[in-house]
Amino acid sequence: MPLGSLRPSPLVEQATEHLREQITQGEWPVGTRLPGENALAKTLGVGRSTVREALRALAGAGLVQARQGSGVFVIATEPAEDWPARLRRAAITDVYEVRMIVETQAARLAAERRTEEDVAALESALAGRERAAGGDDAAFVDADIALHAAVVAAARNPVLSDLFAEFAPALRERLIDLVEMLGLRERDPNTGHDTHAGLVAAIRRGDGGAAEEVLRTELEQTLALLHRRHP
Amino acid sequence: MPLGSLRPSPLVEQATEHLREQITQGEWPVGTRLPGENALAKTLGVGRSTVREALRALAGAGLVQARQGSGVFVIATEPAEDWPARLRRAAITDVYEVRMIVETQAARLAAERRTEEDVAALESALAGRERAAGGDDAAFVDADIALHAAVVAAARNPVLSDLFAEFAPALRERLIDLVEMLGLRERDPNTGHDTHAGLVAAIRRGDGGAAEEVLRTELEQTLALLHRRHP
Repeated sequence: MPLGSLRPSPLVEQATEHLREQITQGEWPVGTRLPGENALAKTLGVGRSTVREALRALAGAGLVQARQGSGVFVIATEPAEDWPARLRRAAITDVYEVRMIVETQAARLAAERRTEEDVAALESALAGRERAAGGDDAAFVDADIALHAAVVAAARNPVLSDLFAEFAPALRERLIDLVEMLGLRERDPNTGHDTHAGLVAAIRRGDGGAAEEVLRTELEQTLALLHRRHP
Repeated sequence: MPLGSLRPSPLVEQATEHLREQITQGEWPVGTRLPGENALAKTLGVGRSTVREALRALAGAGLVQARQGSGVFVIATEPAEDWPARLRRAAITDVYEVRMIVETQAARLAAERRTEEDVAALESALAGRERAAGGDDAAFVDADIALHAAVVAAARNPVLSDLFAEFAPALRERLIDLVEMLGLRERDPNTGHDTHAGLVAAIRRGDGGAAEEVLRTELEQTLALLHRRHP
């Protein structure tokens, strides 16, 4: 089978790159009508079908738009980033604050709605997190996020779980570098117990107020440390 | 300028549609290696470049993947929906509950952080909402969402504003049909005041607890009505 890759041909990629640069470097500001297909083909030294494929790629990236009968116009000079990409670039303190908002309320709902399966999943995720505390940072962060995802899942709102899943990659990337600095492995010095055990216990016994409070205290401590590092 | 639209040619669209159906209707389950480019061209009665463009479209939709040297494989039988699409399909009660979580906490933060510009923007959005109460449902919902967006903006967390912007289209679509049923135009029967004026006043005077409470009461009433309609 000779198909190889499904990426555009190198010629199309080159033409796309060339046009993209004209746009992102400001040679063609928003509102500019691009030269016609023939003119572009001549300038770029490629065929018209290559020009058309390149323009399609730029349209897909949200940089140009064809208007029926009047040509192709620049509609943006920066590619529209999707939400996960924007999240990855956002300040970690802003991401963490939204995480705190979403999860503390999810913990309260989880305490009200958790099923027996949810409790079993929470206890298994808690045990997994405790085991992973001895492992490397990435494995520990994965186990930590898995427990928090289980809390959100117990709130039984698929939109909430979806939202947490959108946040998880941005959190994961940043937290792996910060495990030590944030003391994420440490137990609560006051009680000798990990606060996560307290969170799961509060959800298990259906105490929404306590579940929210335990998680808020935990996340606020981490957020305060993050603010100290990224003021 | 002869370029017309940047959509794929009708031939490519037809070939894409044909292959997509084979996949989504289960003829080619996940893991299947697609027939070679020549075989597909023959079956579909099109050229090889058309087949390649169609496969590229399916790869973009997350249905197939080319593996270097071994061919093109089915990796999913349903298109991966993006987050806004999933939100539009989710139950309105689930969307509304998440909206409530995010906005009540945003209102609290807004009261703590609002600048003078935020207060001016809130008052102008409030006046806009009051004016729009006499207009049609779509204009009223737009003005309502603009006020709520201004509350979230005053929390001064770009991730939070981004998140609200992700929710807004899904809310808008549903709410326009429900303005009457939800009584969204009505004032608080107890005080004769619209609760939104109370919300803006609480943010203006920096009372986070009151801002959260006013908004929670308002959104909980609406959520209860939605649950009655979509149990």
